[in-house]
Amino acid sequence: MGIVLSSNQYGKAETRIVRVSRHPAGGREVGSERHELTDLNVSVTLGGDLAGAHLTGDNSHVLPTDSQKNTVYAFAREHGIGQIEEFGLRLARHFVDSQPTIHRARVHIEQYGWVRLGPHSFVRSGMETRTATVTYDGDQAWVVCGLSDLVLLNSTGSEFCGYVKDRYTTLPETKDRILATAVNARWRHVSPDCDWLESYSGVRDSLVRAFVDTYSRSLQQTLYAMGRRVLEHRPEVAEIRLSLPNKHHILVDLSPFGLDNPNEVFVATDRPYGLIEGTVARDDAPPPGLAW
Amino acid sequence: MGIVLSSNQYGKAETRIVRVSRHPAGGREVGSERHELTDLNVSVTLGGDLAGAHLTGDNSHVLPTDSQKNTVYAFAREHGIGQIEEFGLRLARHFVDSQPTIHRARVHIEQYGWVRLGPHSFVRSGMETRTATVTYDGDQAWVVCGLSDLVLLNSTGSEFCGYVKDRYTTLPETKDRILATAVNARWRHVSPDCDWLESYSGVRDSLVRAFVDTYSRSLQQTLYAMGRRVLEHRPEVAEIRLSLPNKHHILVDLSPFGLDNPNEVFVATDRPYGLIEGTVARDDAPPPGLAW
Amino acid sequence: MGIVLSSNQYGKAETRIVRVSRHPAGGREVGSERHELTDLNVSVTLGGDLAGAHLTGDNSHVLPTDSQKNTVYAFAREHGIGQIEEFGLRLARHFVDSQPTIHRARVHIEQYGWVRLGPHSFVRSGMETRTATVTYDGDQAWVVCGLSDLVLLNSTGSEFCGYVKDRYTTLPETKDRILATAVNARWRHVSPDCDWLESYSGVRDSLVRAFVDTYSRSLQQTLYAMGRRVLEHRPEVAEIRLSLPNKHHILVDLSPFGLDNPNEVFVATDRPYGLIEGTVARDDAPPPGLAW
Amino acid sequence: MGIVLSSNQYGKAETRIVRVSRHPAGGREVGSERHELTDLNVSVTLGGDLAGAHLTGDNSHVLPTDSQKNTVYAFAREHGIGQIEEFGLRLARHFVDSQPTIHRARVHIEQYGWVRLGPHSFVRSGMETRTATVTYDGDQAWVVCGLSDLVLLNSTGSEFCGYVKDRYTTLPETKDRILATAVNARWRHVSPDCDWLESYSGVRDSLVRAFVDTYSRSLQQTLYAMGRRVLEHRPEVAEIRLSLPNKHHILVDLSPFGLDNPNEVFVATDRPYGLIEGTVARDDAPPPGLAW
Repeated sequence: MGIVLSSNQYGKAETRIVRVSRHPAGGREVGSERHELTDLNVSVTLGGDLAGAHLTGDNSHVLPTDSQKNTVYAFAREHGIGQIEEFGLRLARHFVDSQPTIHRARVHIEQYGWVRLGPHSFVRSGMETRTATVTYDGDQAWVVCGLSDLVLLNSTGSEFCGYVKDRYTTLPETKDRILATAVNARWRHVSPDCDWLESYSGVRDSLVRAFVDTYSRSLQQTLYAMGRRVLEHRPEVAEIRLSLPNKHHILVDLSPFGLDNPNEVFVATDRPYGLIEGTVARDDAPPPGLAW
Repeated sequence: MGIVLSSNQYGKAETRIVRVSRHPAGGREVGSERHELTDLNVSVTLGGDLAGAHLTGDNSHVLPTDSQKNTVYAFAREHGIGQIEEFGLRLARHFVDSQPTIHRARVHIEQYGWVRLGPHSFVRSGMETRTATVTYDGDQAWVVCGLSDLVLLNSTGSEFCGYVKDRYTTLPETKDRILATAVNARWRHVSPDCDWLESYSGVRDSLVRAFVDTYSRSLQQTLYAMGRRVLEHRPEVAEIRLSLPNKHHILVDLSPFGLDNPNEVFVATDRPYGLIEGTVARDDAPPPGLAW
Repeated sequence: MGIVLSSNQYGKAETRIVRVSRHPAGGREVGSERHELTDLNVSVTLGGDLAGAHLTGDNSHVLPTDSQKNTVYAFAREHGIGQIEEFGLRLARHFVDSQPTIHRARVHIEQYGWVRLGPHSFVRSGMETRTATVTYDGDQAWVVCGLSDLVLLNSTGSEFCGYVKDRYTTLPETKDRILATAVNARWRHVSPDCDWLESYSGVRDSLVRAFVDTYSRSLQQTLYAMGRRVLEHRPEVAEIRLSLPNKHHILVDLSPFGLDNPNEVFVATDRPYGLIEGTVARDDAPPPGLAW
Repeated sequence: MGIVLSSNQYGKAETRIVRVSRHPAGGREVGSERHELTDLNVSVTLGGDLAGAHLTGDNSHVLPTDSQKNTVYAFAREHGIGQIEEFGLRLARHFVDSQPTIHRARVHIEQYGWVRLGPHSFVRSGMETRTATVTYDGDQAWVVCGLSDLVLLNSTGSEFCGYVKDRYTTLPETKDRILATAVNARWRHVSPDCDWLESYSGVRDSLVRAFVDTYSRSLQQTLYAMGRRVLEHRPEVAEIRLSLPNKHHILVDLSPFGLDNPNEVFVATDRPYGLIEGTVARDDAPPPGLAW
């Protein structure tokens, strides 16, 4: 019997960077410039020939996480950011291609949305976050895009009936309930080349449209409809994984107060919550490799 | 020397209620109804003749916090919600007027925003929260409106110079920086009668416009400009209190990498942060009474 | 009618500082030193002659919040920290006494607990936080000590009966329930001189002992018993304010499953929660001044 | 090309249950009973023959997540909880063995610690959480134990030198730094039979001891030392996975104020942070199956 170091990785998590792109406005004064704003949270994870650091404290193969952070800042200046998938690809390729001891890099980026108020004024647009996870092994690159905390609600058009009843079942069947969720979706692209912004907008639109349009017999059914809609409309997507919390809205029993409640007054509960998870894929999707 | 019970209050905090208003669509099927959605977090605080509960465990003057919660749900069905100021006034008046031992009620309501996607489909609109705090003492009512977590950013048009330098000052003066804050504002109304929605929209617009328009020599100056703008445009507002965290964006020193950084790459920091607080008021405002 | 700037203040919030005190161990090697660890979150708030900053953007009276942060770090090195009340007093006095335009300083400190594992090894001890708020106006100083997030639970010895029943009351009376709270307490000292550590330990012990010992007819009764116990045992305390959330534990109805539930299985709920607040004071306490 | 439903699962997350065990004290009154308290957060995930729910909205194979919640409560009464691994095994086996359409169950439990203050009085003991994840496929069961948010700090005995320097490296080498982390560990057991409490205590003790004892040249080295120590001392553990954030404490430069800083004053930073992850295993460990 021996004790061995198995898989391991390290990196710098949650480097917060805000990039202002300044477009000079024909010699006019500062105030007339039009700016673009990019607000990111970047996490880098590296793997490779790192056993020495663990086994003997030999750091000669370790690029410090502080240097990874600096690279994020410097690359934003040298190359700009562009779409987060491009920025992730550039960073991931850099770490593997420039460091002989690093054989695998994953860059995970969260992008926070801002809405323009003026030439250089902005307001944060909400909780919804766009994400990208890029993985590179020195040879191939994989891109997984995503979004999180897109909170959707249908106030009717949802039922839940015909389920298994066991000894512990007390839930009444319902033909009309609120269906609400915080969409957490990640989708794998067929290739690392894409019009990322157009693709993201298209996937997001398909997710929202399918949620709104689907008469739902369960959140499972809605999940599949959302995933299927994306794959039908976006040929560049090979596979999509959805994790949908069922944000329960419980109808309040007002009968003790002599009142009816025709699906009008609900308690929004925090915990517990249902959690429905599923993957929808093309049957001819390329293998996932290291994408996930 | 004696030991005495001094001020005291109690209530139910954070009752989460979602109210669907269903507008039947002329005999058509369920799916064609148009719904309205109101999503609230309601906190009730009551004061009065409650010493017995503290001193001897005599609960005969105590309306349970559970009953307060039930009242929130029942009132939403019986009377509807309308604007949160109206709902707060109705609840506050009910508790004091119906309970002989309760002499003072405060109802604090947070409202979460949703944007319509369809006749009965909605998406959460962001972190920004509308608030109202209503206080009633059996005689008079006071209304304080507010908003929180409205995150604004100017990427130029902000400087910070000419400040005190002491032994511990290392901050360089700057003629061009990012100014960002999460607006937390509360404003007291002259009277408890108002077109609340129109007033709220007007105040919010004044706050945003003043932030965007003001060339800022300090966040203090911006704060005052925001408060002044509200009072200039909204005669129904007597006083406004602003609490503005300075969400620092630090320019990254890229010179170790042979790069300049002409106000393009910033670190968004979490802590510490500046916190600027101030009140702007009319000099003829009515006395605040129990408003705050 | 005119628009005026009313009360205002500013400062640096949440400066996180960890101070290691190293006690050399008689010429032995590094590893044999015994260290002390102090882990603080310091927030400074200053007031004074600051209208110019708001009204005209004149910063000549403004000590930057960045300098306030630097002062926290420098003072920790120059003077050490000692008890947080002492550190707060030193900082508050410094800002007012050294800055002609600053007339009032408040320093609020949170201290996080660590338990020793070895001469220079420690483990975080929990969520409970010790606090101190020191206010100084150039003449007098006030000290308010406190603690937050001390979570206590009695699994019996608590009832809730004899309360008001109105139309909206459905809560059943109970002779045996779980009583749980997260103690948030702040107490004002008679003078700014004290053996702070001994006093803090004594107050905390009184709070815990009173919670454990009191047969509770309501959380109100327990609150008063806790406050009274502190004032009885600690002559240096003039007044104590308690804010006690009622962390509800709801007995689960297991009868649908053919099971009884003799106060054994409970749901711990997040929201809503009762919130009981009260002040217990000496009738001969010195006036509070600017303490709160 | 076709679109297919791939892996999918569902369940009830975060059912909060508090179980009081009452030990009658020989006919004496209520107050003399000695109670035990178990405070859990239980998440159930089920997989099986569930395509119909997704594809056609046929719920006839779906046991509602509400019933799963009820089962947690009922089992706590019927069978007690015991150690969380036992409770998880009982629940996981129940769902698969009683439901023909459910072929796989995973039960993840978090346990919050309480320290006794009296026969029926308790105080929450901290942020540290004990966890267990049990997976059952109708044939075999796997148990993964764990802990999270155990925050450890060494104030010396840690260096970081000899690492790769690239164009983006500015970090100075150091022979003496603070090393701090929040241990998140999960370890797989050789078999689903064990003295769980004794094993948990032993693993936790090994983790803490190895952190304290190891002179650290990197957090990687400390991670491996912690994992190795567990495997050396606990033959029942097959494999351990550690995820260790490097909670950076940055030495403050006090030289602008004419002060030195001999490793005494540090800034505790929130973001970004290093994140070191690794697995240490026996080379003859049984295959993991569905454990993770």
